[in-house]
Amino acid sequence: MMVTRVRQRLFDILERDLPGDIVADLVHYFLIVIVLMSVTGAVLATVPALELYDKIWFGACEQVALGAFVLEYLIRLWVAPEHPMRRHLPAWRARLSYITTPAAIIDLFAVAPAVVSLAFPMDVRALLVLRLLRFLKLARYSSGFNALYLAVKRERFALLACLVILGTGVLLAATAMYLVERTVQPDKFGSIPDAMWWAITTLTTVGYGDVVPITAVGRLVGAATMVAGLVMLALPIAIIASSFSEVISKHNFVVTFSMVSRLPPFSDLDARILGDLLPLFNSRSFDRGRQVVRPGERARHMFVVLEGELESTGTEKTVRLGAGDVFGLLPGLDGDIPPVRALTKTKVLAIEEDELHMLKLRYPLISARLEEMARRPTGGVHLRRTRAVTPRRRQTPG
Amino acid sequence: MMVTRVRQRLFDILERDLPGDIVADLVHYFLIVIVLMSVTGAVLATVPALELYDKIWFGACEQVALGAFVLEYLIRLWVAPEHPMRRHLPAWRARLSYITTPAAIIDLFAVAPAVVSLAFPMDVRALLVLRLLRFLKLARYSSGFNALYLAVKRERFALLACLVILGTGVLLAATAMYLVERTVQPDKFGSIPDAMWWAITTLTTVGYGDVVPITAVGRLVGAATMVAGLVMLALPIAIIASSFSEVISKHNFVVTFSMVSRLPPFSDLDARILGDLLPLFNSRSFDRGRQVVRPGERARHMFVVLEGELESTGTEKTVRLGAGDVFGLLPGLDGDIPPVRALTKTKVLAIEEDELHMLKLRYPLISARLEEMARRPTGGVHLRRTRAVTPRRRQTPG
Amino acid sequence: MMVTRVRQRLFDILERDLPGDIVADLVHYFLIVIVLMSVTGAVLATVPALELYDKIWFGACEQVALGAFVLEYLIRLWVAPEHPMRRHLPAWRARLSYITTPAAIIDLFAVAPAVVSLAFPMDVRALLVLRLLRFLKLARYSSGFNALYLAVKRERFALLACLVILGTGVLLAATAMYLVERTVQPDKFGSIPDAMWWAITTLTTVGYGDVVPITAVGRLVGAATMVAGLVMLALPIAIIASSFSEVISKHNFVVTFSMVSRLPPFSDLDARILGDLLPLFNSRSFDRGRQVVRPGERARHMFVVLEGELESTGTEKTVRLGAGDVFGLLPGLDGDIPPVRALTKTKVLAIEEDELHMLKLRYPLISARLEEMARRPTGGVHLRRTRAVTPRRRQTPG
Amino acid sequence: MMVTRVRQRLFDILERDLPGDIVADLVHYFLIVIVLMSVTGAVLATVPALELYDKIWFGACEQVALGAFVLEYLIRLWVAPEHPMRRHLPAWRARLSYITTPAAIIDLFAVAPAVVSLAFPMDVRALLVLRLLRFLKLARYSSGFNALYLAVKRERFALLACLVILGTGVLLAATAMYLVERTVQPDKFGSIPDAMWWAITTLTTVGYGDVVPITAVGRLVGAATMVAGLVMLALPIAIIASSFSEVISKHNFVVTFSMVSRLPPFSDLDARILGDLLPLFNSRSFDRGRQVVRPGERARHMFVVLEGELESTGTEKTVRLGAGDVFGLLPGLDGDIPPVRALTKTKVLAIEEDELHMLKLRYPLISARLEEMARRPTGGVHLRRTRAVTPRRRQTPG
Repeated sequence: MMVTRVRQRLFDILERDLPGDIVADLVHYFLIVIVLMSVTGAVLATVPALELYDKIWFGACEQVALGAFVLEYLIRLWVAPEHPMRRHLPAWRARLSYITTPAAIIDLFAVAPAVVSLAFPMDVRALLVLRLLRFLKLARYSSGFNALYLAVKRERFALLACLVILGTGVLLAATAMYLVERTVQPDKFGSIPDAMWWAITTLTTVGYGDVVPITAVGRLVGAATMVAGLVMLALPIAIIASSFSEVISKHNFVVTFSMVSRLPPFSDLDARILGDLLPLFNSRSFDRGRQVVRPGERARHMFVVLEGELESTGTEKTVRLGAGDVFGLLPGLDGDIPPVRALTKTKVLAIEEDELHMLKLRYPLISARLEEMARRPTGGVHLRRTRAVTPRRRQTPG
Repeated sequence: MMVTRVRQRLFDILERDLPGDIVADLVHYFLIVIVLMSVTGAVLATVPALELYDKIWFGACEQVALGAFVLEYLIRLWVAPEHPMRRHLPAWRARLSYITTPAAIIDLFAVAPAVVSLAFPMDVRALLVLRLLRFLKLARYSSGFNALYLAVKRERFALLACLVILGTGVLLAATAMYLVERTVQPDKFGSIPDAMWWAITTLTTVGYGDVVPITAVGRLVGAATMVAGLVMLALPIAIIASSFSEVISKHNFVVTFSMVSRLPPFSDLDARILGDLLPLFNSRSFDRGRQVVRPGERARHMFVVLEGELESTGTEKTVRLGAGDVFGLLPGLDGDIPPVRALTKTKVLAIEEDELHMLKLRYPLISARLEEMARRPTGGVHLRRTRAVTPRRRQTPG
Repeated sequence: MMVTRVRQRLFDILERDLPGDIVADLVHYFLIVIVLMSVTGAVLATVPALELYDKIWFGACEQVALGAFVLEYLIRLWVAPEHPMRRHLPAWRARLSYITTPAAIIDLFAVAPAVVSLAFPMDVRALLVLRLLRFLKLARYSSGFNALYLAVKRERFALLACLVILGTGVLLAATAMYLVERTVQPDKFGSIPDAMWWAITTLTTVGYGDVVPITAVGRLVGAATMVAGLVMLALPIAIIASSFSEVISKHNFVVTFSMVSRLPPFSDLDARILGDLLPLFNSRSFDRGRQVVRPGERARHMFVVLEGELESTGTEKTVRLGAGDVFGLLPGLDGDIPPVRALTKTKVLAIEEDELHMLKLRYPLISARLEEMARRPTGGVHLRRTRAVTPRRRQTPG
Repeated sequence: MMVTRVRQRLFDILERDLPGDIVADLVHYFLIVIVLMSVTGAVLATVPALELYDKIWFGACEQVALGAFVLEYLIRLWVAPEHPMRRHLPAWRARLSYITTPAAIIDLFAVAPAVVSLAFPMDVRALLVLRLLRFLKLARYSSGFNALYLAVKRERFALLACLVILGTGVLLAATAMYLVERTVQPDKFGSIPDAMWWAITTLTTVGYGDVVPITAVGRLVGAATMVAGLVMLALPIAIIASSFSEVISKHNFVVTFSMVSRLPPFSDLDARILGDLLPLFNSRSFDRGRQVVRPGERARHMFVVLEGELESTGTEKTVRLGAGDVFGLLPGLDGDIPPVRALTKTKVLAIEEDELHMLKLRYPLISARLEEMARRPTGGVHLRRTRAVTPRRRQTPG
């Protein structure tokens, strides 16, 4: 059982799910620093003047970073069966399933080339660039990438339309310029692909100036292209901007699997069901003293407390809420609940009305359990006393 | 009657109106691929180094693409009388009316030059560029162009004002620079049109750098122009952006004539009336489980179901709605209707309150029919059982 | 009296206030065309290769345009006492007051140089550029300039803050670059003003490329400047954009003095009072069939009809409203009025609640009159039958 | 006591808190002019051609500016104990605490180099650049910097995410270009840091054109980078823009410590408590005649009048409000109060509902006092007659 507990602990550290786990935070920031140093090294190593390859300390640093990444990869592989999503699988299948995730593939690419070059002496410099892929490891830690990914995904049709419009603009501008300046500057506008280089440079308002029209008609075409470029600029700004700022302001932290899998309402669920539920949850955080539900306000979400303490001031009694408690909107009711205020910095999961409907359609039992928990005390607020921040953990067979 | 049915089928395939018609989808994507290949060929053919004209396979591909486009043009011409808008015309007048549409003219330009050059041996290269016009054929398939067109049209006065302001800015900056640097760089600022090239380059923040002020006063004028350029940049971004993103988020699919002409409420209408009605309709799509009308929400549109199934959960009974059914706001009533939820992915037409007024003013009979359909069962929701997704088709004389 | 009527007519034509006055429209567009031609001529005359000065027809055109502008200036001067604002003044004082308006000064500058050069033979070319000032005459006709002016004025404090921030950014970036590359590129970064040219070019993302850092530290400073430039770009876009698009969407036409001075509620007012009132009015236009006040909506403005016909469908009777009628919000009441719909394309003045308060504080009699007109028939809607579009005109002593 | 009163007066002048203090305004603008002149001098002194060092008047001006700044610094140091925040400290500790504020450090840096160079003859030119730091003194006077600072602070996580994304983009683009053009242009893309210079130039759409890809594959990479640049451009614009324009429109003037410390509700509070409260207040200004609370509107803030006069028109009596009076929302009540209108240009502090909760949690006595003041007369409006604009001042021991 000792081994099991070590594996559990390592998993918790690497996933960094337990709020306030200082060891996990240290490991997290240590890995970020190693990635940044390793990438900086790979970048600087391409500068001939620095002659980093001839420096002994540079090679040593490289070996240390490589060792850290190999160790991280191996530990992540070992603890993979701890993931709630894979707990029901035999260990070897859990690890196989982990190896094929995008994060694990990036991790592998971050170490494989260097390991291979150790085994088989090759031209190290060509492989060095592959080390830059380690930078992508940072994406795992950054909520910014997540937000950009969600924003782009939400507006992918609109962005595709922008690309088609941009492509048409490039083609039209390039063709016009090819026809006008083909004979005057045959080295620059001698073919449409050459002219397209000028067109994309101009439409994005980058304007290198390496290719520039010189005839009067060519400049007229250029002026029209620039004005069209202002419109090209406006389209993605409008689309990405509104979407990204909405996503960033909403999803201010990333809901991970393990956060949810420990909460009482979900702790005995099958992992596949939980994976199905995860996209239904939005996360919200509230500072101390903030109203989560204002007095007289109609609740628009069902909330599950992840972390922190809240207080519900009903007409009859005041109730304290902690991690795992449920309150807020009940499906089918009109959302009149007593006001709720955050007593400490609080993180909650919020489920919208539409998503509650989806939940009810697909998992009526879970929906019923949430409703029962939310209804238990007075008017939609749970009565239980605050529990410790770290809730009880379901025992898993090692 | 055999010929009539073939023509109907070809029309349906080319217009791609019947949801889930796999043959139509294949033809649609096949035509897009051919256009992209043909345009790519025309672009690459202008690169002298590739010597594509001497390649036999290039000529063959060209012929195949040309053949496909000629065939498409002829078939579209043949099936033109099938269009609901032209069904009441004799066949030759229907075709004449089709030939003069912008889409048909683009289609003609896409094939005419190549056909002509086959008949009369000419310098093929000069004509080649005309083949790029085929790219415009894509506009027919892209909802992005549609959205841009609608956004620009909605804000045409504001954009015109921007152009006037941009023109004034260019003129003022060019005049100032002409006065300042005329004698210092006579080859670059020797005339106001020359200075205007610098001004437009700077105001749009493209900044090629081929023409640059060198005196102290000239640089002051340049700095003021750049700061003014930031404002120039802001104006179209503000206008286009808000308009485009609104249009894109609203019109997520294009309502075609035939979609509407098959729906029971409109299927026996004269095509000219239908053409009059089309701009009144907005389209909306809802995913499975989404609420179209939320509980307690005031309906703000009258909805006509195009595709999919919905469920209205009134106080007395639950009603299913399918293609052709009508629900939602009734003109003059206050919009209190039972909540409606999408059971499958659903597309609906939505008519706003103002547009219902317009409809009532101009076509009181149609308005009355819609109202009657919407009012039939309980409180504004139609009672009829769900029908097949493909509604019955009105027979037309061959 | 004949002279008086001619002067009135000429004033109406030049001010273009009477809706549907075809002669005024023709004169209006004729003057725009003359301005555009004259400016184009002045621009092209600076191109030495065209040798426009040696062309007889060019000189003739110039004389015609000059004649038209002189004539326009003299007529505007003659009819100046017709302006409602100046009707109470003696003719010579009215003209003196007109001469000192910005519009009249621009008009004078548009003709003065050419006239002077006719009297005293001078170097015509130097004066030619002054002809470009004629372009500013267009500002008088363009609502775009008006909107930009209003938008900039509304946000002048925020824009000033932007300029201060931009100035600080330029100064910091230039100083840093001066310290770094002063000795490496003394011809380009040899003094801070030289470095400021690079800084403004970079911060506005114009990027000519005539001055570029070449050392490693210089490039780091450059990269930081570029990233700061993205923020610089964002600030004015945010401010101008929201303000401009709001102004443009609200003020879709310009309210002129004469439009208002003819309306019955205001026609016997002293012109100075009217000039005081004008800034309180917003203008709105509604297309045929649009709801001005929706059923059940709380009116938020008092409306005065400028042009077009509307229909108020109260519970008891339906009332038609025309030019000069008043409806909508009454100060102190809660804004419950019957719905109003535009029967034709309609222009109205809208007075907000706050502005009604201001009106009541300063001109209680006018406020009382408007209230009485708005209250006369049933529940805040005027009963009078529609009048002719051109309302009666108050006789003024010639 | 004479000295005490002089010190008080000097403090009021330098802090410019008393509204309408003409001497303070003059001193304020005088200092701004001196800063601008001194900075302009330091900038121009770097231009060798001007030979400003050899001009006697330039040296004299420099000495005058230096004297003014030294005098300002000494006076500010002397009056530091007058600041409400430091009134409870012994004089020498108050001055020590003042010296370590960022504003005082900037002030010191603005004079120290010049003073040192007077004492010890050194190369004056090297120190000259340090004089540019005087420009930062302007930040003290500009609400624009304040707004930018607040906007950046509010969105610091989103902006950090943008920087990470920009960094990833730069790294990916640079690596790709390094791999592609390393051998073709070894002087420009010979190492990844070199390629990063090109990447940042392109991603920010600056586009100097000093480094440009020349191969076909390189141009494809460049085109992809430019399109990605449009997205990079959109992210900060979206984030900063919405945040900055919100801050600017809300915080139209800066609430200083002394403004608040003179108001009756706060005048006897400990300064540390006041410093704790300050961030809870938003400032609002209303023009003459504006409604602060509209009729029938639910008040959403508790207001404390800073300056100007207001009128509350309750059902029973009309009450006048002046500096120091409290009205508006009471915590726990529903916000129904009589309408309030500004009679003169008015500045108020506004406390939101959430912030009232915070206040009640942390300082129940202050909250109770505010509530009592707000409740005193009829329905949440204070009854006291208007007081003089300059409220009574608490005597402090000299």
